Amino acid sequence: MTKWVYTFGDGKAEGKSAMKNLLGGKGANLAEMAGLGLPVPPGFTITTEVCTYYYDHGQTYPSDLKDAVNTALAGVEKIIGMKFGDAKSPLLVSVRSGARASMPGMMDTILNLGLNDVTVEGLAASSGDARFAYDSYRRFIQMYSNVVLDVGHHNFEHILQELKDSRGIKLDTELTADDWKKIVKLFEAKVKDATGKPFPQDVHDQLWGAIGAVFGSWMNQRAITYRRLNDIPANWGTAVNVQSMVFGNMGDDSATGVAFTRDPSTGENAFYGEYLVNAQGEDVVAGIRTPQNISIVGKNKQKSTLPAMEEVMPALYRELNDIRDKLERHYTDMQDMEFTIQKNKLWMLQTRNGKRTAKAALKIAIDLANEGLISKKEAVGRVDPAQLDQLLHPTLDPKFKKTVLARGLPASPGAASGQVVFSADEAEAWVREGKKVMLVRVETSPEDIGGMHVAAGILTTRGGMTSHAAVVARGMGRACVAGCGEITVNYKTKSFSAGSTTVKEGDVITIDGSTGEVMLGEVPMIQPELTDDFARLMEWADTIRTMKVRANAETPLDAGMARKFGCEGIGLCRTEHMFFDPKRIISMREMILAKDEAGRRTALAKLLPFQRDDFAELFTIMAGLPVTIRLLDPPLHEFLPHTDAEIAEVVKASGVDAETVRARGAQLHEYNPMLGHRGVRLGITYPEIYEMQAQAIFEAAVAVTKKGGKPVVPEVMIPLVCTKAEFDLMKAAIDKMAQQVFKATGTTLEYLVGTMIELPRAALQAGVIAETAEFFSFGTNDLTQTTLGMSRDDSAGFLEVYREKGIFEKDPFASLDQTGVGELIEIAVERGKKTRPDVKTGICGEHGGDPASIMFCQKAGLSYVSCSPYRVPIARLAAAQAAIGVEGDRTK
Amino acid sequence: MTKWVYTFGDGKAEGKSAMKNLLGGKGANLAEMAGLGLPVPPGFTITTEVCTYYYDHGQTYPSDLKDAVNTALAGVEKIIGMKFGDAKSPLLVSVRSGARASMPGMMDTILNLGLNDVTVEGLAASSGDARFAYDSYRRFIQMYSNVVLDVGHHNFEHILQELKDSRGIKLDTELTADDWKKIVKLFEAKVKDATGKPFPQDVHDQLWGAIGAVFGSWMNQRAITYRRLNDIPANWGTAVNVQSMVFGNMGDDSATGVAFTRDPSTGENAFYGEYLVNAQGEDVVAGIRTPQNISIVGKNKQKSTLPAMEEVMPALYRELNDIRDKLERHYTDMQDMEFTIQKNKLWMLQTRNGKRTAKAALKIAIDLANEGLISKKEAVGRVDPAQLDQLLHPTLDPKFKKTVLARGLPASPGAASGQVVFSADEAEAWVREGKKVMLVRVETSPEDIGGMHVAAGILTTRGGMTSHAAVVARGMGRACVAGCGEITVNYKTKSFSAGSTTVKEGDVITIDGSTGEVMLGEVPMIQPELTDDFARLMEWADTIRTMKVRANAETPLDAGMARKFGCEGIGLCRTEHMFFDPKRIISMREMILAKDEAGRRTALAKLLPFQRDDFAELFTIMAGLPVTIRLLDPPLHEFLPHTDAEIAEVVKASGVDAETVRARGAQLHEYNPMLGHRGVRLGITYPEIYEMQAQAIFEAAVAVTKKGGKPVVPEVMIPLVCTKAEFDLMKAAIDKMAQQVFKATGTTLEYLVGTMIELPRAALQAGVIAETAEFFSFGTNDLTQTTLGMSRDDSAGFLEVYREKGIFEKDPFASLDQTGVGELIEIAVERGKKTRPDVKTGICGEHGGDPASIMFCQKAGLSYVSCSPYRVPIARLAAAQAAIGVEGDRTK
Repeated sequence: MTKWVYTFGDGKAEGKSAMKNLLGGKGANLAEMAGLGLPVPPGFTITTEVCTYYYDHGQTYPSDLKDAVNTALAGVEKIIGMKFGDAKSPLLVSVRSGARASMPGMMDTILNLGLNDVTVEGLAASSGDARFAYDSYRRFIQMYSNVVLDVGHHNFEHILQELKDSRGIKLDTELTADDWKKIVKLFEAKVKDATGKPFPQDVHDQLWGAIGAVFGSWMNQRAITYRRLNDIPANWGTAVNVQSMVFGNMGDDSATGVAFTRDPSTGENAFYGEYLVNAQGEDVVAGIRTPQNISIVGKNKQKSTLPAMEEVMPALYRELNDIRDKLERHYTDMQDMEFTIQKNKLWMLQTRNGKRTAKAALKIAIDLANEGLISKKEAVGRVDPAQLDQLLHPTLDPKFKKTVLARGLPASPGAASGQVVFSADEAEAWVREGKKVMLVRVETSPEDIGGMHVAAGILTTRGGMTSHAAVVARGMGRACVAGCGEITVNYKTKSFSAGSTTVKEGDVITIDGSTGEVMLGEVPMIQPELTDDFARLMEWADTIRTMKVRANAETPLDAGMARKFGCEGIGLCRTEHMFFDPKRIISMREMILAKDEAGRRTALAKLLPFQRDDFAELFTIMAGLPVTIRLLDPPLHEFLPHTDAEIAEVVKASGVDAETVRARGAQLHEYNPMLGHRGVRLGITYPEIYEMQAQAIFEAAVAVTKKGGKPVVPEVMIPLVCTKAEFDLMKAAIDKMAQQVFKATGTTLEYLVGTMIELPRAALQAGVIAETAEFFSFGTNDLTQTTLGMSRDDSAGFLEVYREKGIFEKDPFASLDQTGVGELIEIAVERGKKTRPDVKTGICGEHGGDPASIMFCQKAGLSYVSCSPYRVPIARLAAAQAAIGVEGDRTK
Repeated sequence: MTKWVYTFGDGKAEGKSAMKNLLGGKGANLAEMAGLGLPVPPGFTITTEVCTYYYDHGQTYPSDLKDAVNTALAGVEKIIGMKFGDAKSPLLVSVRSGARASMPGMMDTILNLGLNDVTVEGLAASSGDARFAYDSYRRFIQMYSNVVLDVGHHNFEHILQELKDSRGIKLDTELTADDWKKIVKLFEAKVKDATGKPFPQDVHDQLWGAIGAVFGSWMNQRAITYRRLNDIPANWGTAVNVQSMVFGNMGDDSATGVAFTRDPSTGENAFYGEYLVNAQGEDVVAGIRTPQNISIVGKNKQKSTLPAMEEVMPALYRELNDIRDKLERHYTDMQDMEFTIQKNKLWMLQTRNGKRTAKAALKIAIDLANEGLISKKEAVGRVDPAQLDQLLHPTLDPKFKKTVLARGLPASPGAASGQVVFSADEAEAWVREGKKVMLVRVETSPEDIGGMHVAAGILTTRGGMTSHAAVVARGMGRACVAGCGEITVNYKTKSFSAGSTTVKEGDVITIDGSTGEVMLGEVPMIQPELTDDFARLMEWADTIRTMKVRANAETPLDAGMARKFGCEGIGLCRTEHMFFDPKRIISMREMILAKDEAGRRTALAKLLPFQRDDFAELFTIMAGLPVTIRLLDPPLHEFLPHTDAEIAEVVKASGVDAETVRARGAQLHEYNPMLGHRGVRLGITYPEIYEMQAQAIFEAAVAVTKKGGKPVVPEVMIPLVCTKAEFDLMKAAIDKMAQQVFKATGTTLEYLVGTMIELPRAALQAGVIAETAEFFSFGTNDLTQTTLGMSRDDSAGFLEVYREKGIFEKDPFASLDQTGVGELIEIAVERGKKTRPDVKTGICGEHGGDPASIMFCQKAGLSYVSCSPYRVPIARLAAAQAAIGVEGDRTK
């Protein structure tokens, strides 16, 4: 028989904190605290399994649940010595939801449950305070009606306000017991009016109504949205906590408060918290009364004139401070606690690991380790890698009141301001004039790289989290808001509109790439600072992790940045980005327009010195670290001119007529370029392109080595291979070129030739391909596109619906689809290693910087992950966490 | 030690016909004939393994080959009693290539090898015929120089012609021994002149030169092209046959000829062949002298006045006829034999299974079975399924001398003539006026379906064998030449040009979809006729095969045709084709342009009756056979209007303004529509579309069943599924709709809900998907595109290079990539059956009509294959062959 209900209280508990999945976070921690002997009001937790049962069985409960609840309730009555529904001395309870992860989207708390027209009198008598009793009752009616009966707060506030107005008073505190009694009647009438039924008087009906509301709230739109945004699976379910009430509003010897064992903003080891005398929890949250600091230090720090709890209730403060120590030592982490003081008796209502800023997370982890409370390994596991982004990019000053113009996708973190321009060329021109620009486009393409590089930020109206703009911006560490459909760009008038606002070229806007917000004008920012704690944690992480971390970079700027962030080589240098420079694109186009191989070779010869210099610079910056260079990948039509002006320029430079240029463009047009004439297919059909690139790589490597730099071991990578034969043909040409260069220069050096695994067929054929390929780099962007048959540029629209409907829990382009794409990676690694046990394996798709995907890479046995420079620290930390198997709360 | 050389002759042989892979077809059959005791000139075969060795080792021979050849040669000398290179009585040999499969692209034969300035005199003396000796020598110089030394025939023909001119004679036969002697000197001088070296006089040098030339010819362009066109892998290699010479030109008691054991055109059981008195084999082929019939019957049939061999050499004829019987009984198949009579002695030079027309293949197979020589099973294995196409489509009259204007891809078999039109609308208009049209387009799209249906044939200038035009044309059984790049279409001037020829709208052209040829004017055709033999063979095939054969069809016409061809249900009804009718497309567009779900439902309600009628008609035609209906698959933008006129029409019908229509088009535009918002993704985002289609299916099924037709079991198929969740959401909606219809109509019927497996992820997840999916249909077109990351519409260009370079042996869109895509199918079948042992599995991609792919489907354990109606007979035969494991010569 399944145990559906777990009790706690009186220094005992059936549950414990390790049972979070079953009892939810709140329930598990209440049990843990009770077990520790802390003063916890007795109660019980209905498990998350009941929630799962409820939704699996047409919203019905297990048949034996009712008995279990009754038994648990009887236990509480016994501890407290009061009876639920008793006319004289009624037991009151609170009902709260509690999922495995904290979920603000869920049901509000219901307090004071158990009050009705009879028991309210009992409460009045037993507490000796009729005003308190009726105030409690009206609060209960209000909460219960709102949450369970769907009668909104405003109905009641309206009544209350009218009464206050009619009496000419302002504060609730001025109302008397009789006033509240009258209000209760009015509230009850309102409920009957709104629902057609009287407010429930049976306390057991009240309880089951509340329990049902908790389970119901698991599937409300807010909760679903929150889960989607926070990657929480729907099948986790929520628990329900039923706990005897304690009252912080029973007079000046009562109080309620929240406290953190350390400062959640800075991480400083100082007791931090707020409390209110003679108040219930909701009063603290409501913000009507100004909460007071608990400690004198805190009070002084905030220059508060209100007395601290340490001053007003010194004994209770010491008791709380002792509990603070006990809990932090017990949980070995900073705690967020809720407490209530009822008539000079301290009660603990909740403890949980406290939310904190990235800065605080770092400091707390380092401090706890230094204090000997946790190991360095544990410290490394305590910081959420994704949070590090906060420390690496500027953020908007939260004190500034911003006006949001539109919202798009948070495509690349950081905030930025600049003058709006609508083309990459203009961006470059304006920046040359010393201006700071914001590049606004419907979408971007590889030819916009230059403009994207100089822009402070990028805003697009189309494309998803892995659109060109998003990927490139993340790679550059440039702030980007993508897919901002609320904005309509008009290139002709050089303006964009958002609602009724029109923004013209030159106007200043601010974007926040971490939230997707777009603001008019300049919003003040806070610049990032890398603390010693950051460096320390990275150092610890590096000693723990087993996977290397490389960067995806091709410009010296990016490569330098990546080294600064601690990368251990380049995992992906995308050579095509090197061809868009104005000096080069002309030769590239000449190559594409050439009539024959000889013509192509002539044009390629002009590109050779550029490529050689590019590679020499990268090799120099990486100083002996491995550099993986991917040979040309995109289809040739991406390099062709589009506008008449560009075509005219090409005509002038190449001597080919405009008609031919246009015809070649039409000829190269593809219906599905992602699946078209690209990658190794270019190498097979135009071997001279890859030959030139190989020549540039080897000549650069030789030159840098000769100059006395550390020996360079280039890794030449062939993209989009799907058969061994393709790879072998290209490898033969590369090997031949290497020998040619070595002979000509009298120098020999080591190099590797390997392949991207980015097509399902390549993954399946990995065993065969590894016969000749020396490394595999999983191109998970393309592998996701082909395995799922889903274009990353076209899927933003329906992926949204997919996530809403729970088909995908995460965007498969942001976090690896471990079931589908993951199986192919596992197959490829297994087959590849069987053929070549020392085959180097890495990942260089967007997933290389995603913590969950990095965990997968560790399990799959990859040698390294490669990600955009700004994600290198995140990857270093995530790799360390992966090595020690920490997955936080995400484990299913 | 590897045995590199196999000898034969004197009633013995080291090889046999089963050793074709090692000895090549010719060598294996020579050995077999020798082993049977037939009169075969002695000789030996150098194996195909030597060829493989040769190319694997930088074009060198195994070290022990020379000895093996010398030993074998000594054996031949011993049998014949003559010595190779002997001055008095020299042994002469022929050297011929011989691959596993017959390969006309390979090296020509070299005859009379062993002659030089000395041995020619010996031959003159021993034969007593100096003219014969010198004629033989000059023939040898000419062949050898051409094949081995690369001195073209024309060099020699020129010399010969000059001499004849100077002597005022016309025929070679008028030349004397001295003339030939003189010519030999001139030939030798020419060789020295052209190559810088004298003609080789060492007979062993001659032999090794010839052997090298055979192996070299394996990699010449003609051979490569032939292999590519005939799907022969390069690693098979060729053997070399060295055989002692016999001469059919030693006087009137000598002759040479070829014979078929049955008529290769009709299949009739009559001895059929031709011979020439006093001639060498090449004279028969050269066509200078008119060959004579071997039999009197044959002579009379062809109304020849030349005497038959049966009359001239009755005893030898009887001997040959006995051999004919013996060989046919031995090989149990029609043989193509070559023979030579040297001074009244019959020698057999070759036997092999004779090539034959499809009609003959059928008749011979049936007759051989009826004669008891082979079983019915064997008879079924004897007909090449691909050849059946000849019997199902009109063919060009071979007697007509056609002029080919351009060549494209043979995209859909059959020949057709018609007046050129350049748009689908015009095609329909002209046909309404009673004209016969040929639709010429750069490419076609789904909206051209109507025009394609009424056209006699379709010609496109872009796209490959699996482009839209090709797939649809094959489906309709319409002749189609696709990707004809030699033609440039100009829509504005309504004309196309091919070279210097311009063809205008209304001009008549003829296309041959079996060869890819395009001809100006009308070329006479031969109409197909389905013989009793055809029906008989199909009947036998049906009793043997274990896989069902279904058809891909959606129109009543196609469905009816498919039934006529013996399909056992519909495996793929593409519902989108049903929406392009002018009456429907307007509602479809209204649906796409609708602002909200209500608007879409209104438009869909207009489409419902059409769909219902479509399905009812299909169900009626299929009379109880299963019908698999795929719900809407293509992206919505395919249905939107493109031209201004079309947009105007939509504006008029829908009340939406043109700007909105264009904006919706822009909004729906996709970079990679193949990987975009289509298939089940439409069902997920617009559930109302699939609901309408499900409603139409169930209402139609109920209506047809109620009318007393055989009970209909519709199979509702959801396309492009990649997760179980997608499938489940759609299945729930379909099941709900089924219940709704059953309730409304008071009728219940069986139905299945299944999915396409056309994405790698779906294949991997098949075990999970099979929990709810009742059938799988492998959509191998899309599965190939995604597994290989290759768009079928964009790959024609580089696939050509891929096949030239040997990366792909076959077009993966025409014949299944068994290694890559195949493994995914195997995985899916295995996992699917593990979950649901009785899951129905089928294939409905283009590969369903390809014999090699059908063989794979059998091995993978599929329940059925589905193909275009015109390929149903091919599939029935191929499935039967697959069931008995006949793979012909294609086995690697």
